[in-house]
Amino acid sequence: MPEIRKHYFMDRYCIIAGERSKRPTDFHKEKKTEIRSGVCSFCPGNEDLTPAATAVYTYEDGEIVVRKDDNGQRVKDWTIRCFPNLYPALPGHEIIAETPDHEKHPSDFTDEEITHLMQVYAERTSHHLKSSKYVSLFRNYGRDAGASLSHPHTQLIPMPFIPPVLTDELNAIEGAQGCPYCDIVEHESGGERVIIEDDEWIVFAPYCSRSPFEIWVLPKRHLNSITALDDLASLGTMLRDALKKIKILLNDPPYNYMFFQIEDDRYHLNIRIEPKLSITAGFEKNTDVFINTMPPEEAARFFRTHQ
Amino acid sequence: MPEIRKHYFMDRYCIIAGERSKRPTDFHKEKKTEIRSGVCSFCPGNEDLTPAATAVYTYEDGEIVVRKDDNGQRVKDWTIRCFPNLYPALPGHEIIAETPDHEKHPSDFTDEEITHLMQVYAERTSHHLKSSKYVSLFRNYGRDAGASLSHPHTQLIPMPFIPPVLTDELNAIEGAQGCPYCDIVEHESGGERVIIEDDEWIVFAPYCSRSPFEIWVLPKRHLNSITALDDLASLGTMLRDALKKIKILLNDPPYNYMFFQIEDDRYHLNIRIEPKLSITAGFEKNTDVFINTMPPEEAARFFRTHQ
Repeated sequence: MPEIRKHYFMDRYCIIAGERSKRPTDFHKEKKTEIRSGVCSFCPGNEDLTPAATAVYTYEDGEIVVRKDDNGQRVKDWTIRCFPNLYPALPGHEIIAETPDHEKHPSDFTDEEITHLMQVYAERTSHHLKSSKYVSLFRNYGRDAGASLSHPHTQLIPMPFIPPVLTDELNAIEGAQGCPYCDIVEHESGGERVIIEDDEWIVFAPYCSRSPFEIWVLPKRHLNSITALDDLASLGTMLRDALKKIKILLNDPPYNYMFFQIEDDRYHLNIRIEPKLSITAGFEKNTDVFINTMPPEEAARFFRTHQ
Repeated sequence: MPEIRKHYFMDRYCIIAGERSKRPTDFHKEKKTEIRSGVCSFCPGNEDLTPAATAVYTYEDGEIVVRKDDNGQRVKDWTIRCFPNLYPALPGHEIIAETPDHEKHPSDFTDEEITHLMQVYAERTSHHLKSSKYVSLFRNYGRDAGASLSHPHTQLIPMPFIPPVLTDELNAIEGAQGCPYCDIVEHESGGERVIIEDDEWIVFAPYCSRSPFEIWVLPKRHLNSITALDDLASLGTMLRDALKKIKILLNDPPYNYMFFQIEDDRYHLNIRIEPKLSITAGFEKNTDVFINTMPPEEAARFFRTHQ
């Protein structure tokens, strides 16, 4: 029978409906052709099609250098380029073009490239936190996951208030004994839901997964955000390796990943990756309870036992 | 600039990003061909392909009669047929096949047909409430809104607990002066967000719409659920007329509608219709704040001024 599961420490629920379940390969989605309407405004050479960049990262004499566009002039030969979204959801809404290569996504980045991207995440988060209450950092990949342009990019939206998801969690943490995320690390470590684990990080399928093949990435050490992290290389490779498993084992599906972090020492950084393999329909909208046809234990086993 | 809006009485937010906005006709989606793999198990004649019905409504001598399938034998010539979902999300999960006609959806029902459907909603909700804490009643229309079968149907999932959405609202109502929904009726009545209104009902685009062309249907009288409603005909025609506007004016898009109702006199029945014209992406998952490119005032004007 379907099983109702409660979130680790929030009053949130999912229904693991294993009987309706399919084999992992049944989740493969028909590939959509991405719309490519001529020129890509995120590609090198087309910098004039976007607003002036707020931070442009270049390699010069083997060193990473940060520059800014002058209003008239665009910095060329960049490795990562950050610029205001032409259609901002809120003031400060920024695009991080992750690579000049139109076809190369983080799942295929080298160790050096992914580490560099994490450094940029940390720097831009830190920069925007100076003038905002919260910085939403997320990546939409594929049209069905909300990406309207296919050039590899992450988005960053600074907010003038702390969003409900975080205030709700902080309220729950306030009422808990110790850090609930530290408890999750201890509870899941070495267990059946682990996908990748080392001394610093745990990558796992959460007990109360809301969607098929949901993955969480948690630092074992209690720290509240990417800006507090010394070792960005280990985060980068963990995240990259998780994305690579999704790409290879699930036939390169659309996905979102989101950084949950906040300038509050009680909070514990966590990154959630959600492959877009199911639809949020009437029941979920009516109840906020999610029907998930892929038990996380099975998802983790699949990710663990295949390369 | 984009505008942050707070929900009427909950700590929930949306961002109305009008500049990114399109004209209403730009929301028209490419039509997907519905998969029809041979036999429809919800169609008349195929009753044996589903579990035995729990309630079958037939016309006999001009009267509606309710019957049940015997385990071996299926009642034929039905108008509405309720039976257990072969793949239940929870025990008791029920399908309401709304008509024997494979192609006729509620937007095209006659007054009599839609009233009959509302009667069945009320009866089945009432029936399942006897043995459950909550009954989720919702309709998914179109593949992108989560309908895996195209025959016209509603779903009903009885739950052993009150879902977070309702407990959160009840907590907020507890702390309010009077009923916040009654306040909404008073506040929106005759205003710029009204789509259809009469003495008993108001159909409007909510101030804090989370998605383009979201519509709420509210009874003006304070009552907690469809089971407390005398005049099911007026609810039915209001709902049908709202669905018809969506079908005709937005090119028949996928949608969900959900009944928000609970056996608690403090609550105020409301029905929410969400055409599926946008994607819940990384930002929404990170924050629970929804970016909506269609201001509700503009949506309401469009619905009001076109037939």
